Amino acid sequence: MSVSLSSVPSSEDIFESHNLIGRYIHRTPVLTSVLLDEIAGCNLHFKCENFQKVGAFKMRGATNAVARLSENDLKHGVATHSSGNHAAALALAARTFGTKAYIVMPSNAPKVKKNAVAGYGAEIIECEPTLAARESTLEAVVQRTKATFIHPFDNYSVIAGQATAAKELIEDIPNLDYIIAPVGGGGLLSGTSLSAHYFSPKTKVIAAEPEGANDAFKSFYEGKLLPSINPKTIADGLLTSLSPKTFAIIQERVSAIYTVNDEETKAAMRLVWERMKIIIEPSSAVAFAVVLKNKEVFATTNVGIIISGGNVDFDEFKFN
Amino acid sequence: MSVSLSSVPSSEDIFESHNLIGRYIHRTPVLTSVLLDEIAGCNLHFKCENFQKVGAFKMRGATNAVARLSENDLKHGVATHSSGNHAAALALAARTFGTKAYIVMPSNAPKVKKNAVAGYGAEIIECEPTLAARESTLEAVVQRTKATFIHPFDNYSVIAGQATAAKELIEDIPNLDYIIAPVGGGGLLSGTSLSAHYFSPKTKVIAAEPEGANDAFKSFYEGKLLPSINPKTIADGLLTSLSPKTFAIIQERVSAIYTVNDEETKAAMRLVWERMKIIIEPSSAVAFAVVLKNKEVFATTNVGIIISGGNVDFDEFKFN
Repeated sequence: MSVSLSSVPSSEDIFESHNLIGRYIHRTPVLTSVLLDEIAGCNLHFKCENFQKVGAFKMRGATNAVARLSENDLKHGVATHSSGNHAAALALAARTFGTKAYIVMPSNAPKVKKNAVAGYGAEIIECEPTLAARESTLEAVVQRTKATFIHPFDNYSVIAGQATAAKELIEDIPNLDYIIAPVGGGGLLSGTSLSAHYFSPKTKVIAAEPEGANDAFKSFYEGKLLPSINPKTIADGLLTSLSPKTFAIIQERVSAIYTVNDEETKAAMRLVWERMKIIIEPSSAVAFAVVLKNKEVFATTNVGIIISGGNVDFDEFKFN
Repeated sequence: MSVSLSSVPSSEDIFESHNLIGRYIHRTPVLTSVLLDEIAGCNLHFKCENFQKVGAFKMRGATNAVARLSENDLKHGVATHSSGNHAAALALAARTFGTKAYIVMPSNAPKVKKNAVAGYGAEIIECEPTLAARESTLEAVVQRTKATFIHPFDNYSVIAGQATAAKELIEDIPNLDYIIAPVGGGGLLSGTSLSAHYFSPKTKVIAAEPEGANDAFKSFYEGKLLPSINPKTIADGLLTSLSPKTFAIIQERVSAIYTVNDEETKAAMRLVWERMKIIIEPSSAVAFAVVLKNKEVFATTNVGIIISGGNVDFDEFKFN
């Protein structure tokens, strides 16, 4: 019987998590492109979580968190506040395990995101679009329903779930010099750094962050948690700041953090769309943009890039 | 020694063509989507030529045509007039076989397309953006250079090359009830219908055409070639009209032609982008739009869809 993880995931925890969630997630492909290798000057291996269920890696962590709940906890459901991929992932994971999801969403969240969450059978509770309103509304929901709060990243079961993406990448491409992952709240990055440490210790993990939301960069190099104030970037999945759990792992296991601006992110995203014919979201393009901006660092090496997701709002999006 | 095909390709011709071009093209994947199957009410198999070299099936026909030239012909190069995927495909095929490509392009062709063709080392000859200017310019080029004109579709070697996409699809998915291919000049459709006839005779081939460029629909049902006058559609790869060679094959081997309007095409394209996270061009979406518009025809059947390409001009494109 698996239980929720209460400390930094061990290699056994990540193995067990992978076994636990394997049948509920896609093992996503690792794609390559001769054209992009030529442009970047290195050997790129894209781990395509844009093809994951709900279109993002978040499915891994949410599924692991729900799979580890006790039978009694499952009776009361799960809850979170999110307007993004974690909301959809938790809604689908809850449905998979026959329990209820309560999702607190800001009233100005895009309709397409609300529809996705509602489509998985979750109950949406609207609140004012402020962090304070989100937190107080979530607290009221948890009190009313006794649902378990599943934090989008400050949660070791979630981190262990996100770690399975890098674990698969390492299994498929065993000789990587670098793995690059984008960083927002740090769930994907911390999990990636743990998997590299346990399963491919020679591989360096590099974080990619937008300049307009560079709290991880500042926190990492100043040695203390410095959350972003009014972050702004087209990489809308990376607006959140690190949490105590993710920051502690990242400080220990990540080699460096590089930042890029939104123009660089857009150019990288366009290259992938045009040359590889796959849709990646801006948050994923940040990682590829780091390679294009620092070619001398990665020259002729084997680079794994975690493509975190492919959810783009086409009502809004255009390149020009 | 292979030679250019001078009559309707036989099953042996298509086999030989596939062997001839196999090492120069990608064997593209056949993708499926549970979500899109639910929406469409049938079992969809997408043959993804958007992942083909130059981003389109045109690479197959152009490569077959160039591979079949005599050594003497190869000395003088190849020529065509095209502003689209055939131009890029012929340029790359020519480079592959160490010969020269002369591409007549209208002066108003998008810069991105000119750059692609020039990037493969072809010589671009600009002309006024009229059919008459294209043809007279091409004639002058051929006279000057003695290059072999490779027509984008009215050419049996090209048709046999395009037929290899459906041949691969049938090899991968042997029990298809339908294969749907978009129709512009008819090279892909005629080749597809030949492969189905030879390699999977129970499979019906359906053509998909934009309402605004419905010459194939009219020609097919009236029994004579009726070229489009001023065709207009967002499916810019399907503006051309059938030719004598393609029409004759289509008349004999295609079961039906369905048309869709541009709004239906856009909606189908958006569904694929959003749900499958792959980029398909409007000309490809026309085929999926036919399924969505005629669900009762395809209900519960196994449907192959040829995704003809993934070349979208992101300078221009937006959904709204």
